[in-house]
Amino acid sequence: MAERHMPPPLRFLLAARRSELLGLEALAGTCELVVRVSALVHALQKERGYSNLTLCTPQERLQQTLAGLSEEAVHVESDARRFLDGLAADTTQSSGKARLLNAIAFALFRLDELPGLRRQIREQSVPVEGADARFTQVIGSLLAVVFEAADSALDPGVTRILVALLNFMQGKELSGQERACGVMGFTAGFFTDAQKSRMLGLAANQGRSFDMYAQYADEAVLQCWENIQQQSKPVQRMRDMAQRTTPEQRVDAALAELWFDVYTARVDAMREVESLLAQALAQQCERRIAETRQELDDRRLLLSRYTNHASGRAPSMVFSVQSRIVDTPAADGVGSELERSILDMMREQTLRMQRTDEALHTMRGALEEKKRIDRAKLLLISQYGLTEQAAHERLQRTAMDGGLSLSDVASQVISQLGGN
Amino acid sequence: MAERHMPPPLRFLLAARRSELLGLEALAGTCELVVRVSALVHALQKERGYSNLTLCTPQERLQQTLAGLSEEAVHVESDARRFLDGLAADTTQSSGKARLLNAIAFALFRLDELPGLRRQIREQSVPVEGADARFTQVIGSLLAVVFEAADSALDPGVTRILVALLNFMQGKELSGQERACGVMGFTAGFFTDAQKSRMLGLAANQGRSFDMYAQYADEAVLQCWENIQQQSKPVQRMRDMAQRTTPEQRVDAALAELWFDVYTARVDAMREVESLLAQALAQQCERRIAETRQELDDRRLLLSRYTNHASGRAPSMVFSVQSRIVDTPAADGVGSELERSILDMMREQTLRMQRTDEALHTMRGALEEKKRIDRAKLLLISQYGLTEQAAHERLQRTAMDGGLSLSDVASQVISQLGGN
Repeated sequence: MAERHMPPPLRFLLAARRSELLGLEALAGTCELVVRVSALVHALQKERGYSNLTLCTPQERLQQTLAGLSEEAVHVESDARRFLDGLAADTTQSSGKARLLNAIAFALFRLDELPGLRRQIREQSVPVEGADARFTQVIGSLLAVVFEAADSALDPGVTRILVALLNFMQGKELSGQERACGVMGFTAGFFTDAQKSRMLGLAANQGRSFDMYAQYADEAVLQCWENIQQQSKPVQRMRDMAQRTTPEQRVDAALAELWFDVYTARVDAMREVESLLAQALAQQCERRIAETRQELDDRRLLLSRYTNHASGRAPSMVFSVQSRIVDTPAADGVGSELERSILDMMREQTLRMQRTDEALHTMRGALEEKKRIDRAKLLLISQYGLTEQAAHERLQRTAMDGGLSLSDVASQVISQLGGN
Repeated sequence: MAERHMPPPLRFLLAARRSELLGLEALAGTCELVVRVSALVHALQKERGYSNLTLCTPQERLQQTLAGLSEEAVHVESDARRFLDGLAADTTQSSGKARLLNAIAFALFRLDELPGLRRQIREQSVPVEGADARFTQVIGSLLAVVFEAADSALDPGVTRILVALLNFMQGKELSGQERACGVMGFTAGFFTDAQKSRMLGLAANQGRSFDMYAQYADEAVLQCWENIQQQSKPVQRMRDMAQRTTPEQRVDAALAELWFDVYTARVDAMREVESLLAQALAQQCERRIAETRQELDDRRLLLSRYTNHASGRAPSMVFSVQSRIVDTPAADGVGSELERSILDMMREQTLRMQRTDEALHTMRGALEEKKRIDRAKLLLISQYGLTEQAAHERLQRTAMDGGLSLSDVASQVISQLGGN
């Protein structure tokens, strides 16, 4: 192929394509990481739910099951960590990954808190709300990794699937929180007003996340989700039951386990959607890499034909021999036809990249709102020394009090505290 | 320093910083390229003006001066090409540079047409309009490189200067076109109506470009530009004179050379602004690289202190030993203080990256309009087989006829032809 003997314009044309290919290969690695992260989140969600159950009603039987779930989570975590170790060598050498790497650092930091938390749960030396909040914090840091992966992806097709996955994972996480909250209420035999409104809020926010997911998901994956929704009647029945409880009208505490099992069936079914999305991700990466490789080969062939055709002439004349504007016909038919193909190729490449750029812009728009809210939260944390939970609650309260959306409140906070 | 012995969260925290550093170092290379490109554009603008002069009034004296200007342009071009060769080895290995590399390929392709064009000019075998258009095409392809450099920069400070430079270069290029157009009119002794309206249009568009430039430029660079504007009275006087000419009311053809010299003084003075911007670019890159290096060192130090502090414990306990949520005070004062600094550092890093992201978003907004217009032009070229010039004229005519802005017309074209 002897690319180094090609005239500079052609070398840079190929380099542009290779740059895309390198980006796609790196993106494939990021997607694999996301798939492992989603598996870990699933395991931790299950462990969180069962931890709540055992902390509410300490029983040997429940503790044994929990031990199994913890072991499973540890296993999935070490798989993700091994993958990260392998990735570190590549990823740390590349520019433009700073936010993703930062999110990974944050998540690893949180994950390191798990062994101690598990010990406290075994020893029953932590209140159920505390354990619940700490699991939620770890899971939140893992979702942030998925967010940064979606925001840094350079292929609109991949970004679309990542945005779908992210929204689905957020909905599923809210489901997990609803499961945990339900366990606490049913164990007590009734739900306080605060718990009831939290349950309603969690269900409503799930709806929003799943709607966003549905906007970005493929037909096949949507079908699977439809099926799950149709099977969620038992959950809905128990949700209604929870809303009817009062300190006077209690229900049997044994319902807690039933709620857990019924709800877990729902969350486990959701895992199937995640698996389908993971498959779609891998396929999209593979397809785009194969396409780009093929195009690179095609171009190499065309360009080497061009170089060979021109090699009979003095090297500096390769492009200048005809010295005319490209829009007028040339004297030399063959060379001109090739030159025209190359110009067409450049234009087609430019157009394609412009389309990609636009599509990416649109896809990322879906992430802007969450970005704004995160930024506002972090500003509250760092400037008022609030906890994450407190910052979140303050945003929510302000939104409710002012009849504003969370995103509007976030914009206000940023314009007040954001500075630059 | 023994970074590899650090716990994974800290390793990724440093990797995030290093990723930023790598991005800044690559950006510094891109900026050096931009500075060389602006020098080449300047040389070609001068050569174009003088080519027009010699093609309009063939004289031995003018041809000798032109030969000197061509030699100068060849010299600047080979300097830029040498730099590109050096850059190629690095740049072609990095992802996310596809559009910049594509623009470079396109520009190199155009540059290869220059030797032939110069020969035709020497032989007087090309009409002045044709020669003028071909130089303009080459210069346009070089401006596209600066555009992509601005659009791919990841530091808002650098992006700001690049946006200022790009707008200034566009204004200066319109000035160069005005100079060339004026040479043709003055040589003929009068300006046709089409030439008059082109002269007016070029002056008005210069104004727009320089206004945009002024929005993004620093005080010092603005001052230099103010001074130039105050000295442009002779140009304005000759502009007015051009508008008053008719086939009946001709002026002395010798005014062509005077116009060229007067206008060249203006364009050469503009080059000073470009040099100041080039300096500002280099300084900003240097400063950001130095800052990021320093921060990386500071973080390394803090993190290795933390690792050493924790090394008395079992390795797996480094982070999990306290196993508590970060918002509650820890038993161990020293370790906790360090852990807190690290969390603060992570938060500060995240906030800084969010700010950067927002600022970048704003800066790049300035490039969106030009992107839209380019995209529409390319769609017209590829779908109707128009030349670049014809596509540009069609957009302009549609805008004028419909009382719309160029950007609105471009949006219409994209929504009709853009597909996808």
